[in-house]
Amino acid sequence: MEDQNYTIKDIARMAGVSAGTVDRVLHNRGDVSEKSKEKVQKVLDEINYQPNVFAIGLAAKKKYVITCMIPHYNEHDYWHSVATGIERARQELRPFNVSVDYLYYTHGDRSSYQEACKTIENSDTDALLLAPNFREDTLPMLEYLKKKKIPFAFIDFDIQEAKPLIYIGQDSYKSGYIAAKILMRNYSEGQEIALFLNNNKENPAEIQMQRRLEGFMSYLAEEHRDTITYDVILNKENPEQNDEILDVFFSEHPKATLGGAFNSRVYQVGNYLHKKGKRMKGLIGYDLLKDNVELLKSGEVTYLLGQRPGLQGYCGVKTLCDDIVFKRPVEPLKYMPIDILLKENIDFYFEFE
Amino acid sequence: MEDQNYTIKDIARMAGVSAGTVDRVLHNRGDVSEKSKEKVQKVLDEINYQPNVFAIGLAAKKKYVITCMIPHYNEHDYWHSVATGIERARQELRPFNVSVDYLYYTHGDRSSYQEACKTIENSDTDALLLAPNFREDTLPMLEYLKKKKIPFAFIDFDIQEAKPLIYIGQDSYKSGYIAAKILMRNYSEGQEIALFLNNNKENPAEIQMQRRLEGFMSYLAEEHRDTITYDVILNKENPEQNDEILDVFFSEHPKATLGGAFNSRVYQVGNYLHKKGKRMKGLIGYDLLKDNVELLKSGEVTYLLGQRPGLQGYCGVKTLCDDIVFKRPVEPLKYMPIDILLKENIDFYFEFE
Repeated sequence: MEDQNYTIKDIARMAGVSAGTVDRVLHNRGDVSEKSKEKVQKVLDEINYQPNVFAIGLAAKKKYVITCMIPHYNEHDYWHSVATGIERARQELRPFNVSVDYLYYTHGDRSSYQEACKTIENSDTDALLLAPNFREDTLPMLEYLKKKKIPFAFIDFDIQEAKPLIYIGQDSYKSGYIAAKILMRNYSEGQEIALFLNNNKENPAEIQMQRRLEGFMSYLAEEHRDTITYDVILNKENPEQNDEILDVFFSEHPKATLGGAFNSRVYQVGNYLHKKGKRMKGLIGYDLLKDNVELLKSGEVTYLLGQRPGLQGYCGVKTLCDDIVFKRPVEPLKYMPIDILLKENIDFYFEFE
Repeated sequence: MEDQNYTIKDIARMAGVSAGTVDRVLHNRGDVSEKSKEKVQKVLDEINYQPNVFAIGLAAKKKYVITCMIPHYNEHDYWHSVATGIERARQELRPFNVSVDYLYYTHGDRSSYQEACKTIENSDTDALLLAPNFREDTLPMLEYLKKKKIPFAFIDFDIQEAKPLIYIGQDSYKSGYIAAKILMRNYSEGQEIALFLNNNKENPAEIQMQRRLEGFMSYLAEEHRDTITYDVILNKENPEQNDEILDVFFSEHPKATLGGAFNSRVYQVGNYLHKKGKRMKGLIGYDLLKDNVELLKSGEVTYLLGQRPGLQGYCGVKTLCDDIVFKRPVEPLKYMPIDILLKENIDFYFEFE
């Protein structure tokens, strides 16, 4: 690989064009004839050109603001992890005059989400990282952004037809399929399956849960067609009711010894089992919340699937910066790994090097 | 978090010490009284000090060489992945006047390894990243490095008593334990287990394989005490003999329908099964070599455990640089995640963001 540093003048000389032309090609700016573009590109390829990002950083005069619109969170929440990744990107990007603002809304609360959307429309942000919560309120805001040529990226879940600069998240359907495949390794003849759901399953924020459930059911349809499943609807707003719901369910369905939860709240079931000193034969859930991890270690939860929330936040901010600052091309889709965690490998897990 | 940039002079003023003292504390250099150190540290904590690495990079005059002593590799090898991570770190560190040299040896070939050790002793490298292959030849070289105060880091496998600056790799024992736990999910009454080993198992480079096997056997001892296992010794040097070995083994042991390979060469078994149009009930192996991944996708291999070779190389170089260039403190151990790959999540796997 080529280590020499070339200046714009060197490249201009080698390509037989002006330094201004090279500059315009490098920054994808202004009119350059196809022929000149080709000449410059040929030289860039030959010398394996790497822009000196450090020089770019120190020379940059324009300041950029990337706004991250995400739900409020508590420590150890899923969104706390997202914010950790955003923070990491923010630190890296500071030398390039990029600052990162947060704009919080209350998860699942429509008026709070609407207010955040309004704030965006009155701001002069240069790019938006967004976990789109309410579809009907998101689409008009995106229209505004498109008109103003402000790029936006989705993390965690997607509104495909909105054509974001990039969607970063897990393939929810596939991760549900994998959840079933792993859980069904613990299957033996006659067992039944509990699907632990939440009462607000019509909330658009729960689309991801629905997709996971579809993936899960499609594995069952392929491999365990006759296995009986039960929807167990847990109450997110009044969790104290859940003990009773679970008491009734388990006493009525003693064969339901395998279970899955399709959002972050497998701890609802795990904590119940822990209190009762009981275990299912297998219980799978999502996301490495503190409670979930503790229940994985103590054995009430058998598997957790991870989706790298920190990496999602990090990649989201970095990708927006690639677009607005470095003018680098961006792939419109970045699927996260589907990490399988057991009590034996959880201690070795980390998201970043 | 604090965004303002403080100069050394600002910090000196706030701490009531000289700028020279601040500089010495920041770079962990020269004599500073405990009292002054405390004063400076207090200010650094208050302002949440982040060294401006970009300014450091552009101001640095000294050039540093980090040498990476690793086995020769072909494309898609394990060591090719390691080199990809090293290359990534090299690109990041170029602006800091750090260059990365490679010094190759032939894996498992002692005289080639000895020659590489001799080359190191005659070089003026500033730091060494090393996959220690032959213990008897490694230890004297490390004595030399210690005398010259040249830090060294181990990747992939460790010689604990050599006290490297850092060891980066997987906990082999734990990963063997996990391999058994996952594989035994496919267990049903009466099945026997094939342990696919290689003939040169006394080679020190195979210590890792031994540790994995110990972890694997300890899970069996805990959970499947009476299960019968067979050592199947495959031939690394003459792989054409392996078809015959496997033919004989499988015909003599029809109940051996679960299997594990404890190095990168599960493809030896997978390719054989593929040719014969056969499958075991479960086959687990290590490392995402191209052949292994293809066999995972086509179904002959059921599980692969990944150990992030690229991240190992990347972290190794970055850590050495933290020590010699940035004078940052370094933790002596970095265990890699133990990644569980199935045919369903392999396509989403990547090591770096």
